[in-house]
Amino acid sequence: MTTIDTLLHGRWIIPMTEGDPCLDHHSIAIHEDRIVAVVPTEQANSTYRAAVERDFNEHALMPGLINAHTHAAMSLFRGLSDDIALMDWLQNHIWPAESKWVNEDFVLCGTELAIAEMLRSGTTCFNDMYFFPDITARAAKNAGIRACVGLIVIDFPTVWASDATEYIDKGIAVHDSFRGDELITTCFSPHAPYTVSDQSLETIRSLAHEMDIPITMHVHETAHEIVQAVEKTGTRPLYRLHELGLVSPSLLAVHMTQVEHDEIEMLASSGCHVVHCPESNLKLASGFCPVAELYKSGINIALGTDGAASNNDLDMLGEMRSAALLAKGVAEDPTALPASSALRMATINGARALGMDERIGSLEIGKQADVIAINMDRIETTPLYDPVSHLVYSCGRDQISDVWIAGRHVMKNRVLTGLDEASIRQQALQWSRKIGSE
Amino acid sequence: MTTIDTLLHGRWIIPMTEGDPCLDHHSIAIHEDRIVAVVPTEQANSTYRAAVERDFNEHALMPGLINAHTHAAMSLFRGLSDDIALMDWLQNHIWPAESKWVNEDFVLCGTELAIAEMLRSGTTCFNDMYFFPDITARAAKNAGIRACVGLIVIDFPTVWASDATEYIDKGIAVHDSFRGDELITTCFSPHAPYTVSDQSLETIRSLAHEMDIPITMHVHETAHEIVQAVEKTGTRPLYRLHELGLVSPSLLAVHMTQVEHDEIEMLASSGCHVVHCPESNLKLASGFCPVAELYKSGINIALGTDGAASNNDLDMLGEMRSAALLAKGVAEDPTALPASSALRMATINGARALGMDERIGSLEIGKQADVIAINMDRIETTPLYDPVSHLVYSCGRDQISDVWIAGRHVMKNRVLTGLDEASIRQQALQWSRKIGSE
Repeated sequence: MTTIDTLLHGRWIIPMTEGDPCLDHHSIAIHEDRIVAVVPTEQANSTYRAAVERDFNEHALMPGLINAHTHAAMSLFRGLSDDIALMDWLQNHIWPAESKWVNEDFVLCGTELAIAEMLRSGTTCFNDMYFFPDITARAAKNAGIRACVGLIVIDFPTVWASDATEYIDKGIAVHDSFRGDELITTCFSPHAPYTVSDQSLETIRSLAHEMDIPITMHVHETAHEIVQAVEKTGTRPLYRLHELGLVSPSLLAVHMTQVEHDEIEMLASSGCHVVHCPESNLKLASGFCPVAELYKSGINIALGTDGAASNNDLDMLGEMRSAALLAKGVAEDPTALPASSALRMATINGARALGMDERIGSLEIGKQADVIAINMDRIETTPLYDPVSHLVYSCGRDQISDVWIAGRHVMKNRVLTGLDEASIRQQALQWSRKIGSE
Repeated sequence: MTTIDTLLHGRWIIPMTEGDPCLDHHSIAIHEDRIVAVVPTEQANSTYRAAVERDFNEHALMPGLINAHTHAAMSLFRGLSDDIALMDWLQNHIWPAESKWVNEDFVLCGTELAIAEMLRSGTTCFNDMYFFPDITARAAKNAGIRACVGLIVIDFPTVWASDATEYIDKGIAVHDSFRGDELITTCFSPHAPYTVSDQSLETIRSLAHEMDIPITMHVHETAHEIVQAVEKTGTRPLYRLHELGLVSPSLLAVHMTQVEHDEIEMLASSGCHVVHCPESNLKLASGFCPVAELYKSGINIALGTDGAASNNDLDMLGEMRSAALLAKGVAEDPTALPASSALRMATINGARALGMDERIGSLEIGKQADVIAINMDRIETTPLYDPVSHLVYSCGRDQISDVWIAGRHVMKNRVLTGLDEASIRQQALQWSRKIGSE
């Protein structure tokens, strides 16, 4: 018998490995921060003696969900201004609110609120883009959630930095201070083609290469953005990024609601990743990302919620469902983006986009033990013919019962073990009283 | 002091009356099956002495949700066959499964399962279309949920009836046996233009007029259906229905994903109702109902989940969210279908479509006490600037805490008072073992 830390017995295990859609009555053996085996329960019982052993007789176990694009701290603006046109929303609501309210405490409180929501809905890793990435990183580390913290760059002054050089320098400092951290990684996050200059983008490309980190950027979010870019630069933003050498396996192009045929070829041949944010794209009427076409061309598509201000939640289960449903409608093809593909978007594809697929995104020996348990013992998931279908089309976020990250049990039967929900809500309430009184 | 049965104190009340989007610190006074007052809590406390008094200090209270189109019993097929083209799905999966399995017990078990799910997600009234409507009606009555039971008519033999005459005769018998029932009403439910003859439709129109009940019908669900109709009859289905005198305030036209400009005018001027089923339309890639355009023309639009086999849930909160998001994407306008309009679709518009807006759909004196409480005291609905926004964009079905129908407390702090969830799940499991073993 081998002694290990944790043994989880699952009624169903969806490992997200090739060729194993769903394993019946299997167990996950975890030691320290890693998965040491995924084997039939009988075999697990005769092989391992575990300090902690838990039965999930009515549950599916799967890798934690990866939110490939969000602005966590913006949760404090959840529901502040809805049903408004994008530029009106940005220019008259969000940007003024940000310039008035965003500071270190705002980012700390907003990020903690977001992390609590993410853990409660099965997200174990998120790719963030916001001001004060040092605060975001610290909040994630304290909560025990994995984060790829975006080193934001934007060509106008904000409370975080005054010009591109300062954004980049402060970003590098954040990167350096979390180098080698087990939970925190970084990426460059130039905001969008229309807010970052060629010069800054060239610097970012070269630094990202040197530091071996990805680049996340809003690209082709709206048709309007493209019209303006063509007027100003004579070329569509994706071509400009291509000329600057940014369209590569290091790039996570977020949104991509406007894509021409030759651009799909460019994305596919370059190995660039697309982050699809269906609910935000719908809510802001940004356009439809042609997910089925991108998939067919072999492009790696990850999934993101975007910030709670334009969604208005950070629920990756719901986002998978929206993605799977919308892809069919947009492609006029009910076989587009089947449940299993939506599940890949929210797990292994996200890991691949972040360059972390050696460590997370599936349940495999040697990978980090980022695992979630989903309780299928509910009216809403009765009957059950196929757990993969239910995970995408029927489960609610409240059915996520347990979450482990790097082997640590961060949510135990719906209770967060490392965060104080009441105090997070209290802090958020105080912030919202100030913000809402305007 | 007036003595009444129940007094509900709400932190927020969203009555769905004109001009009252949200009332702070108000109370609902209920006596027997009716609402006797909606007044400020202070006033309620000094006016009423109630047998039961309950505080909802963190909750929004609103009228129960009205699911204007579903096939309740099909919940037993939830997740049985997904990601398949519509005609393949119908002809090779659903219709064979129905002809093999549907009987009185199937409809009873499936409907009870559906009712449990609907109550748990705040639905207090549903408009059903399925075989054995007598069983559906009895299941609804036993559970204490309001139902408009569709008297289905379809021009081919099924286990319920062998020809149009028998469908209609059996339908009338069901209608007669529930005449005057406080919870059960009926409507005619001819399946679709392509499955019901002119002669049957004329009979239905005249009977519906005589019996003073509405007509619910799938109309223009897909482009394919229209192409086939034009080939066969030389005209689009809606025009055929118009010629037959069916396009009137009595008609609930379900789906309407294909609508030309003159058809919008016809729908608007006739007073016909449209039932929008966004998630089913997406999942089956049936097309996009132009909700924003229909709204602008003044057409009354209600909301339905369709059956769980093509959704795969009966969650009207989720359906509202999908409707509000999708309408913006389709209209390319983020101001399309704001949260308050989505809420109307799921409440008062549904009541109006069913001809029941004198009795249900809003919280007003004299109306039936169909009320739901939604707990906003959660990470997912923090902070809260506007409860209407949260109800549509942020709440999960698990936040519905309590449900009253006709003054009876049918769900108390998430526990169904009139249904045995465990036995419903057990029955469904037995059915799914048989169905899934095929």
